[in-house]
Amino acid sequence: MGSNTLACNLAIALVHYPVYNKHHEVVTSALTNLDQHDIARSSKTFGLDRFYIVTPSEEQRKLAERISGHWQHGWGADYNPDRRQALDIVRVTPSLAAAVADFQSGFGKPVKTVVTGAAQRSGSTALVTFRNLLQEADQPYLLLLGTGWGLTEECFTTADLILEPIAGNGIYNHLSVRSAAAIMLDRLRGIEREET
Amino acid sequence: MGSNTLACNLAIALVHYPVYNKHHEVVTSALTNLDQHDIARSSKTFGLDRFYIVTPSEEQRKLAERISGHWQHGWGADYNPDRRQALDIVRVTPSLAAAVADFQSGFGKPVKTVVTGAAQRSGSTALVTFRNLLQEADQPYLLLLGTGWGLTEECFTTADLILEPIAGNGIYNHLSVRSAAAIMLDRLRGIEREET
Repeated sequence: MGSNTLACNLAIALVHYPVYNKHHEVVTSALTNLDQHDIARSSKTFGLDRFYIVTPSEEQRKLAERISGHWQHGWGADYNPDRRQALDIVRVTPSLAAAVADFQSGFGKPVKTVVTGAAQRSGSTALVTFRNLLQEADQPYLLLLGTGWGLTEECFTTADLILEPIAGNGIYNHLSVRSAAAIMLDRLRGIEREET
Repeated sequence: MGSNTLACNLAIALVHYPVYNKHHEVVTSALTNLDQHDIARSSKTFGLDRFYIVTPSEEQRKLAERISGHWQHGWGADYNPDRRQALDIVRVTPSLAAAVADFQSGFGKPVKTVVTGAAQRSGSTALVTFRNLLQEADQPYLLLLGTGWGLTEECFTTADLILEPIAGNGIYNHLSVRSAAAIMLDRLRGIEREET
């Protein structure tokens, strides 16, 4: 960071461990190629500097680095420079703690972690409230997104902030993590357009 | 539709022809499996009854039907019933006209087509304005989403309404069609939460 540029105080961590599988067992989920692309592009569009991909699997971390590398240095970099800019913000880490530590390096105040899930929980924070909290530019927030069947209960109990789930307008509410990330970023950082 | 249920007056059409490729040639783009899943799930979450996948390629239409079928009747239907509900709203059509005709059958007023792209255009309509237009429940609107390098110019000149692009907060604006669809549906049909 140059002396005139302040790092964005919101970053995303896509968590592949610890998450639940369909049978509520704690597992390491597999990478999904398009998660990396879509969430990097959405993050870059909404001005984030960091998108962490968290997995304890060394093999999976190498795969994530290879995907980013293809578009950063390989054939893809020339073919689609826009994609390179998005994947430049990706950081691959073995643990959530490592992601927090990396993000922390740009800030004095301790990083606060923020979680979100599909279920309604008491004491959760509205997205519009979190949007206002983000105005305090020197307070870093790391937004954790779960994969598989969602972040473990432990992630919720240790988080600094729990966000309300995104509401559809019926009882069905099964957004992909890619779609949920896009909507949250728009609500947290998007420019509201006036009626014309 | 039963006599007490009104069809949702907003539907999405994911258009694989006519779209541009990287060299600004008009082509038929290939299906992307996750487009079908993600946009179906987002559409269902925000209360839409119809999500059209438009491609003149018979082979690609069969593929789209097979993907939906796997989750509707095959092994996937038991494994993940939520996915089935989302894919139930998918209709695969050979042309945009066929999608319009199918959607039209539920309404008296002629279907209006709505297009959107990444570039700013004069005379375009803000999403919040379109959200208000949707309150007129008997006026059907078909929102066209382009694949590849975007809908052709002809789609823009023949559309009834051109929406403003989704604004990030910088010069970079390269959302995936899956992310753009999610954000638009949230802005058009999502429930705004009050500050708590």
